[in-house]
Amino acid sequence: MAMNGVRQDNPVVVVHGGAWNIPDQLLEGSKNGAKASARAAYRILKMGGSALDAVVAAVRVLEDDVNFDAGTGSVLNSNGEVEMDAVIMDGKTLNAGGVACVQNIKNPIDLARLVMDKTEHVLLVGKGANQFAEEMGIKEIPVSQLVTEEARREFNCYKQYGNAVEELFGRKKDLSHDTVGAVALDMHGNIAYGMSTGGITAKRPGRVGDSPIVGNGGYADNEVGAVSCTGHGESIIKVCLAHSIISYMEQGMSAQEAAEKGLMKMDQRVNGHGGVIVVGKNGDIGTFFTTPRMTWAWVKDNKLHYGIEDNEDNCEDFE
Amino acid sequence: MAMNGVRQDNPVVVVHGGAWNIPDQLLEGSKNGAKASARAAYRILKMGGSALDAVVAAVRVLEDDVNFDAGTGSVLNSNGEVEMDAVIMDGKTLNAGGVACVQNIKNPIDLARLVMDKTEHVLLVGKGANQFAEEMGIKEIPVSQLVTEEARREFNCYKQYGNAVEELFGRKKDLSHDTVGAVALDMHGNIAYGMSTGGITAKRPGRVGDSPIVGNGGYADNEVGAVSCTGHGESIIKVCLAHSIISYMEQGMSAQEAAEKGLMKMDQRVNGHGGVIVVGKNGDIGTFFTTPRMTWAWVKDNKLHYGIEDNEDNCEDFE
Repeated sequence: MAMNGVRQDNPVVVVHGGAWNIPDQLLEGSKNGAKASARAAYRILKMGGSALDAVVAAVRVLEDDVNFDAGTGSVLNSNGEVEMDAVIMDGKTLNAGGVACVQNIKNPIDLARLVMDKTEHVLLVGKGANQFAEEMGIKEIPVSQLVTEEARREFNCYKQYGNAVEELFGRKKDLSHDTVGAVALDMHGNIAYGMSTGGITAKRPGRVGDSPIVGNGGYADNEVGAVSCTGHGESIIKVCLAHSIISYMEQGMSAQEAAEKGLMKMDQRVNGHGGVIVVGKNGDIGTFFTTPRMTWAWVKDNKLHYGIEDNEDNCEDFE
Repeated sequence: MAMNGVRQDNPVVVVHGGAWNIPDQLLEGSKNGAKASARAAYRILKMGGSALDAVVAAVRVLEDDVNFDAGTGSVLNSNGEVEMDAVIMDGKTLNAGGVACVQNIKNPIDLARLVMDKTEHVLLVGKGANQFAEEMGIKEIPVSQLVTEEARREFNCYKQYGNAVEELFGRKKDLSHDTVGAVALDMHGNIAYGMSTGGITAKRPGRVGDSPIVGNGGYADNEVGAVSCTGHGESIIKVCLAHSIISYMEQGMSAQEAAEKGLMKMDQRVNGHGGVIVVGKNGDIGTFFTTPRMTWAWVKDNKLHYGIEDNEDNCEDFE
């Protein structure tokens, strides 16, 4: 059943740090974080490493960076708690692992990978996910190590979730954070995606968005490509955005065309905004967003591209 | 954004009570349960009621029937606890509501509907879902009211989840239970689906399968149709089965062709077995399963059809 991809010497990684109304004071930190994430993944791919290892490396960098809403820097729910989601998927086997509403761990992406590698399941949530983490020897950390000043500030601004959504993903101005994710194609033709998030400020306890859900927030299939979405999670779920984009590519669209068509559908059908990154099985790249800004970076052919504004595309050599 | 369907006087409901190695002693009870469920929904549809109300009514009947693994009769996880999942989706607005790993409530489908109707979210899990139930005034019941003798017996047989999956969804013989679900098309041309499950015997605490996940276990879109899947949840997630079937229908396949193609893909790509029920926006019906048996029933044109074995199709008048 396992499908090996076409061997090719031109690996690709694309990452995002969230699509939302990113404030000016976070621009520099967000761009640098995305670049560091893409570089960490590309280093692995260049040495012949797997797409799975590459997306884990990329997501870990973003989880550990306080500029992003994942791992350290996760936002607070309406109880003032941190509940985190993460996922990983292997396009070769279609195996996947995810966790949702997990608490007190530093790198949820590592736990997601263990769900994939060590259980018969795809998704573990809540106290069951924490029980599994303990079983795997993952150390619990105090929540204070995950929470930044910025997250506390946002929590105080947005006790009302409804307001938060309108202001953060629409065209109004204010702060919050969003999902991080990565897609990669390795030298062996294998494809993977990984994602992690603290969700949306002032979300209800137990709320799960699109991020840890295979087909909603992301998908990876060696026969087609990989997608990672970001933005308003509930909208992404309703149109099953990642799998919609995969279907468009199966029908012959390029990564970029499929990305644009997917987000246009989400806008038309549920008035939802967000962003996506896509890699096709042949290495073509798509990035698109309907929010004011999205942090993204990719590396291919030893060139690192990155940006955050509409039509921004900076390029530098991968060193 | 809301899409109204084409008004038509020919409502349809299709229900399933799970696709697995259903043992002989459950055949009669399962068939009768599926028939009662389809009748309850069709009664609502005939009076001009909504597809949403119809699928809730159908799923409630199956939740309250001890022959099915949902609500009363839910199986036990590896801790010997009951954790239930349910979902509902409105094909007109693409709004959806789901709960996962919720405990001590009688009808998870009602809670799923409240998530859709009363929150900004799509999915609530674990203690957060129970917190929301309490807020909505849903009474907690002792777990003893949900657990049947049969569920306890299965739990004792299958402490090892791996064995359970192989035996229940493959061609080996033994007992367990599975998801219930319904899809409906009402006189106003609106489409919906609903599902509920106790999961798989001896699952890890916190395990979420395909059932409550929009696009994995089911999907509803007035512009295309609705799907509800059943069978091995992890396999269904990996191929994003419901949304795959919706995509095939968008590309012009009939409900039946799309159902068959989806399950064949699942078999080929991840060696997974299951069953699906489908209704197209024009009322065409699809039912297909790759497990030894699936309990299903549908009503259209005042005719009730039902069956459980390969090629079994009984018909009686809807009274």
